[in-house]
Amino acid sequence: MNNYKMTVQYDGTRYSGWQRQGNTAQTIQYKLEQAIGRLLEEPIEVSGSGRTDAGVHAMGQVANFKTEKKVDCGAFLISLNQLLPEDIAVTSLSAASPRFHARLGAKEKTYRYTINLSPVQDVFRRRYEYQLPEALDLTAMEQAASLLLGTHDFRGFSTGHTKKSTVRYLKSIEFTQDGDKLYLTFTGNGFLYNMVRILTGTLIEVGQGKRSPDSVISVLETKDRQLAGFTAPPQGLCLMQVTY
Amino acid sequence: MNNYKMTVQYDGTRYSGWQRQGNTAQTIQYKLEQAIGRLLEEPIEVSGSGRTDAGVHAMGQVANFKTEKKVDCGAFLISLNQLLPEDIAVTSLSAASPRFHARLGAKEKTYRYTINLSPVQDVFRRRYEYQLPEALDLTAMEQAASLLLGTHDFRGFSTGHTKKSTVRYLKSIEFTQDGDKLYLTFTGNGFLYNMVRILTGTLIEVGQGKRSPDSVISVLETKDRQLAGFTAPPQGLCLMQVTY
Repeated sequence: MNNYKMTVQYDGTRYSGWQRQGNTAQTIQYKLEQAIGRLLEEPIEVSGSGRTDAGVHAMGQVANFKTEKKVDCGAFLISLNQLLPEDIAVTSLSAASPRFHARLGAKEKTYRYTINLSPVQDVFRRRYEYQLPEALDLTAMEQAASLLLGTHDFRGFSTGHTKKSTVRYLKSIEFTQDGDKLYLTFTGNGFLYNMVRILTGTLIEVGQGKRSPDSVISVLETKDRQLAGFTAPPQGLCLMQVTY
Repeated sequence: MNNYKMTVQYDGTRYSGWQRQGNTAQTIQYKLEQAIGRLLEEPIEVSGSGRTDAGVHAMGQVANFKTEKKVDCGAFLISLNQLLPEDIAVTSLSAASPRFHARLGAKEKTYRYTINLSPVQDVFRRRYEYQLPEALDLTAMEQAASLLLGTHDFRGFSTGHTKKSTVRYLKSIEFTQDGDKLYLTFTGNGFLYNMVRILTGTLIEVGQGKRSPDSVISVLETKDRQLAGFTAPPQGLCLMQVTY
């Protein structure tokens, strides 16, 4: 069995998210499986490093697929991109060890959330950012962010129920400002469902003065979603990198 | 009569170009006139620095409109952007001298043409660039570009017939490369219909080795459109700046 690893870029605007669903063809995973399956003339299952929600983008999603066939990666990459819709692109393809698994092997993920602080919409980036024309207190946001770093049970910062562990290691939250754009870059060993968007929403509320920086501690302690902030909208979020 | 000057940004993808046309509401000029007219409760005529074609974008189109009313520019800008579609934004608005005219007063215009040389489409910028995964000979392109600079009759580099002068001053063509992106930036006192796209297409053919750099001289001399290169597609083109 040959195992192939690929890096995938997508504009999530038109999609119901990464994960294949019975009732819609509009998922990234389905589009990749259809295109690769058509080229290899066999049913293909694509495993991603993790799901992204409807409307969320990726610069560096990683996925793998297995086949008995030998694939010429250079030529296959070109044919594959010709078959894929214009808002999905495979940017690299390589042979991987038979044991490589995009989800189980992921050591670290980086997500970026983009906020446009300008009162005027950026017509070219509008699908990739959350427009919030407000003066945010960055010092307070950074203070709250520092309290979130480390290994915690982040259940209060996620939605949905799970019996699995909700403990994650959050390595860093970086704040970068470029003109009117504010980027929050989250790196950790894994993220729960909606976790980056709820962390972002909570940090925004801190920046707006609606809550104190150390209010995030009670969310970690009580694990109560009600105490966390709003879920920031999906279009500002982008999966940047997955490391193995 | 009060005269107001504005800078306009738009994603031209969905539009039939700048200029109002009888048979469609999908023009930038029409959308601006409708929105401003609705706010001022009177019919408004908006004059742009020049037309842009269907599918062409603008970072810094300049336009003006006249009204008997006094406009509070700060508040008006916010209301106007709320009324405009999300792919059109007015980024600045100011009172201008009664004699200011966006088209007649324009001294210099800068257009940028973006080429993506990567074999892989950029899913986030696909609407704003021309994907051409080829190795282009930049030295030859720059050599051809230098022959085009100065004051010439550019009729061979335009389409359509006009009785007006087709002499223009082309001040500079700059080549900038950033990773796989190649930007051609054209500055001049004015551009004929399709001129930037035909200049770009011709320079691309020089870069591909399909024609020699000095073949551009015969286009200037004969003024024959047939001797120039192809018209590069509209989505790569963006009106960057107009100076007065």
